[in-house]
Amino acid sequence: MTTTPNRPATAAPRAVALILAGGAGTRFWPASRVARPKQLLPLSGPDPLLVQTARRVAPLTGGESGMLVATGRHLAAPTAAILPGLPASGLLIEPAARNTAPCIGWAAHRVARTDPDAVIIVLPSDHHIGDEPRFREVAARAIESAASGVITTVGIQPTHAETGYGYIELGDERESGVRRVRCFVEKPDRARAEQFFASGRYLWNAGMFFFRAGDMVAAIRAHLPALADGLEAIDRAARDGDEDEAVARIFPTLPSISIDHGVMEKVGDLAVVPGDFGWNDVGSWQSAWELATKDEAGNAAPAGTVLVGARDNLVVDLRTRPAAGGDRVLALLGVEGLVIVETDDALLVVPRDRAQDVRDVVDRLKQSGRSGLV
Amino acid sequence: MTTTPNRPATAAPRAVALILAGGAGTRFWPASRVARPKQLLPLSGPDPLLVQTARRVAPLTGGESGMLVATGRHLAAPTAAILPGLPASGLLIEPAARNTAPCIGWAAHRVARTDPDAVIIVLPSDHHIGDEPRFREVAARAIESAASGVITTVGIQPTHAETGYGYIELGDERESGVRRVRCFVEKPDRARAEQFFASGRYLWNAGMFFFRAGDMVAAIRAHLPALADGLEAIDRAARDGDEDEAVARIFPTLPSISIDHGVMEKVGDLAVVPGDFGWNDVGSWQSAWELATKDEAGNAAPAGTVLVGARDNLVVDLRTRPAAGGDRVLALLGVEGLVIVETDDALLVVPRDRAQDVRDVVDRLKQSGRSGLV
Repeated sequence: MTTTPNRPATAAPRAVALILAGGAGTRFWPASRVARPKQLLPLSGPDPLLVQTARRVAPLTGGESGMLVATGRHLAAPTAAILPGLPASGLLIEPAARNTAPCIGWAAHRVARTDPDAVIIVLPSDHHIGDEPRFREVAARAIESAASGVITTVGIQPTHAETGYGYIELGDERESGVRRVRCFVEKPDRARAEQFFASGRYLWNAGMFFFRAGDMVAAIRAHLPALADGLEAIDRAARDGDEDEAVARIFPTLPSISIDHGVMEKVGDLAVVPGDFGWNDVGSWQSAWELATKDEAGNAAPAGTVLVGARDNLVVDLRTRPAAGGDRVLALLGVEGLVIVETDDALLVVPRDRAQDVRDVVDRLKQSGRSGLV
Repeated sequence: MTTTPNRPATAAPRAVALILAGGAGTRFWPASRVARPKQLLPLSGPDPLLVQTARRVAPLTGGESGMLVATGRHLAAPTAAILPGLPASGLLIEPAARNTAPCIGWAAHRVARTDPDAVIIVLPSDHHIGDEPRFREVAARAIESAASGVITTVGIQPTHAETGYGYIELGDERESGVRRVRCFVEKPDRARAEQFFASGRYLWNAGMFFFRAGDMVAAIRAHLPALADGLEAIDRAARDGDEDEAVARIFPTLPSISIDHGVMEKVGDLAVVPGDFGWNDVGSWQSAWELATKDEAGNAAPAGTVLVGARDNLVVDLRTRPAAGGDRVLALLGVEGLVIVETDDALLVVPRDRAQDVRDVVDRLKQSGRSGLV
């Protein structure tokens, strides 16, 4: 791998966050829609997950001026609206969805033009982190590792044998708190997940990556030459002040590939910092209930909800238009473990333990020609 | 008991229905309200229960002109509105709730003024009857029995050991299909209900009574003299054309007592016709689900409801104001045995087997100062 020479981490390296906020997602229907995906929703607290993500990383990047937020064209306006401190130039609007590698490469070139040694922190926009100071400690160590010239990830200490995530197998220790990555592993079956969890040698891949901008430019050149060619064409145009036109023309032609498959699994020397900071991928309404503030009966519901003999329910009211003639009372009597979500145009009732099947409702709506509701 | 002499039932006796439509009822909240009680709701079919009751009995009374409908002042307008064929004089508006005996006595005097031998059919307004032709056969026999000078009731053949109803113990046969009443029994405990059901000698008291107008006037005189005095004062005023004023002044002072306790349990010679015509007292949302037309998965829900893996649910949508900007989809995913009822100002979710506790929600609303919702 061609990189700029390693340097000792003396002063704190400059860090730029790249928050990936292009996700669509149907698992939070009816709250999540094509035009309002999960990261724009307040699923763990009063603010949208994206706002929480930006706020969480801001101390490491010198605020929102040190951030890039990548999203799709149809999401540019609502994304900018909830991040008023983000400069217009910080919004990377992908003209077409090409998975993560083209977007990360675009950001790497963008940063490398002025500072190839700046460390880029790639973060998903739609996860929850319970212990934010601890997250920043871990991230600071990963930034240092990346600043030394090795692409670094943060892996999550598993709490159970999950089959829904990819895993990272740990190698030797590189330095205190930083391990080598032995390999990336796709989502395992139940038996392998049990084995991974029991071994203590595997972390969850949470999609957080740390690298110097120049190192990623070089890694893409080494492992994804077709992508590198396209990105360099955009980079040349950007140096001439024509970035927008070049992105509109070239970006949709770039190979659609994830950074995991395209780069991480191919780079020989990767570092990983194990993290244990209350990470939750907020994968379904079940997760939202787990993260919500609940009363002593386990109910998370808006003030004014009448709860009689009701236990362990999640009520989410995202209506923006109050009912004509005054608001409406919601009464739950004797129900347990339900999720009830209401928007202006939909009301969903589902048991928490069926929440992972919400996509089935979206599919049914599409099949019946009601795509306006998805 | 002083009555006009028995007469053979040659021509069909004239019959007048008295439909008791004053009930309040909280068991169907949020559909039922103080100003919209159960009998005004379409709980078993497209029409309100009161409309169904009137239509069912009309062939026996020569249409709505042969009916009296008793209700409270606050319900007079909506009651009249759904019975457009009822003459204004057919609406008996009780200025105060005094239970059933004063109202039935008032009606008896009203009818007796012109025809003391006319048979009055007292019917609750808020029950469901599945087999209406069979009901009319049974009622016709009860009318004949009443026309012969004996106060007659129709008792329902029990289908299970119900503890929620009063019972009628059967005596000897009076004539074909008509038995003597041995006694009325209050709602029994579980053990007695089992015993009643096993014995085959008990019927459910469904509050249906048949009697000649003059016979009831006499029975009230014999067993409830204070009530008789008041009713006779109203009767005298009515003969002078001052009924409204007298009712307003005297009715609220009449003793508040049920016809069951005040008259039926005291009259020595009563007849009962056993009835088996698909009677249902529509006592809760559970009953409404039982009576509803359901799909093959047991769901009763409005067209357009998205049902994915949902079984045995009841959805009732009584909203009158469609949502601004188009209607809303309701999606039920994987839920079983739920009742979901929506009005303009309330949404209730309750398992069917907790439906009898809906009153607890009403109590909670009252306690929290939200009486406008009850």
